[in-house]
Amino acid sequence: MEGARAVPLEIPEVVIDRLPIYYRRLCRMRDEGYTVVSSQELGEALAVTPAQIRKDLSYFGRFGKQGRGYSVERLCDELRLILGLDRRWRMVLVGVGHLGRAVVSYAGFGPQGFELVAAYDNNPKTIGTKLNGFEVRDVRELPGDLRADPVDIGVIAVPAESAQPVIDTLVAAGVRAILSYAPVTVQVPAGVEVRRLDPLVSLQSMTYYLRRDR
Amino acid sequence: MEGARAVPLEIPEVVIDRLPIYYRRLCRMRDEGYTVVSSQELGEALAVTPAQIRKDLSYFGRFGKQGRGYSVERLCDELRLILGLDRRWRMVLVGVGHLGRAVVSYAGFGPQGFELVAAYDNNPKTIGTKLNGFEVRDVRELPGDLRADPVDIGVIAVPAESAQPVIDTLVAAGVRAILSYAPVTVQVPAGVEVRRLDPLVSLQSMTYYLRRDR
Repeated sequence: MEGARAVPLEIPEVVIDRLPIYYRRLCRMRDEGYTVVSSQELGEALAVTPAQIRKDLSYFGRFGKQGRGYSVERLCDELRLILGLDRRWRMVLVGVGHLGRAVVSYAGFGPQGFELVAAYDNNPKTIGTKLNGFEVRDVRELPGDLRADPVDIGVIAVPAESAQPVIDTLVAAGVRAILSYAPVTVQVPAGVEVRRLDPLVSLQSMTYYLRRDR
Repeated sequence: MEGARAVPLEIPEVVIDRLPIYYRRLCRMRDEGYTVVSSQELGEALAVTPAQIRKDLSYFGRFGKQGRGYSVERLCDELRLILGLDRRWRMVLVGVGHLGRAVVSYAGFGPQGFELVAAYDNNPKTIGTKLNGFEVRDVRELPGDLRADPVDIGVIAVPAESAQPVIDTLVAAGVRAILSYAPVTVQVPAGVEVRRLDPLVSLQSMTYYLRRDR
């Protein structure tokens, strides 16, 4: 692991999912000139309890001194290493509808090390068109392209019924991380990570709270 | 609470966030003719441990009989009530770029009870254009529109720098649930729920796992 600290394996996924949010906030604080932050201050900015932040970070070692807060710079650097953000990650996009176009035109990936290298679709009208510098490729080229030029991450923005076959193709080609905008639960083998950006699931968890207050 | 069971207040948010995923799967099983499901079967389909499913559901009462599994129909009905999905929820969309267009054209909201009633933008070229039956309205009309015709949920698909002012406007007008596609952490008062669909946060939590395996 190239000198990174050994990390215990049993860290809950929900903790890992919070680290990027801490990381983003800390980067911003560093850019704004802050040198030290307390778990109280960080928690207030992120609507997380200070105890939760201390517990989450404690999985990775001792970052803060009791009563003196965290070094913004050091915590930021450590989180970058822990999250694997000290290198570039190559991505392909499959599905170039409205969502896919939003992905292609999103300027936030590159500066954080996520490089979109190609975009695919199955619509003959879309294939071959130019999109933010990409020529949209035929999804049938995907297996061959990935053999010739492997990528780390697949972003899929295809209809629900196409999600599983597209993911199977990506996984067969060695892709081990899938970011899915498709509104469907998909199956992947062990060792492959999937994150879903699903508006319905988010809406349906909020209505739980809305309902309670009625 | 209209006859719904009283729900304890201390249920972790991470549990609530899993319920819509159970609900979706159960609806599909019901539609496919299944009458009973074990936590083992449900867990396998969703990549969640059976123990986790039993624990999550136990917050809400006893749904299953030891060794006999859950009634698909009953669990589906109960989750619908628990999640507040037995009624319609009105939504407005703010921001009609690529992402906003994807939201407007997404056919999955209506059947689940989420009704998009209006779409707003601040771009003079976009305001007044027709989009899936909506005439895009000027975001400056938003406060007046919400006073005249309140909604439950705001979906925001605006650039990072516009997110907070738009959310402030929505919250001031009584909206208590925000689904945000903006790549930024926002502040809301207590009692307002926010869910973010942020591709970078999802990518950065997956690279943690990719990195470990190198």
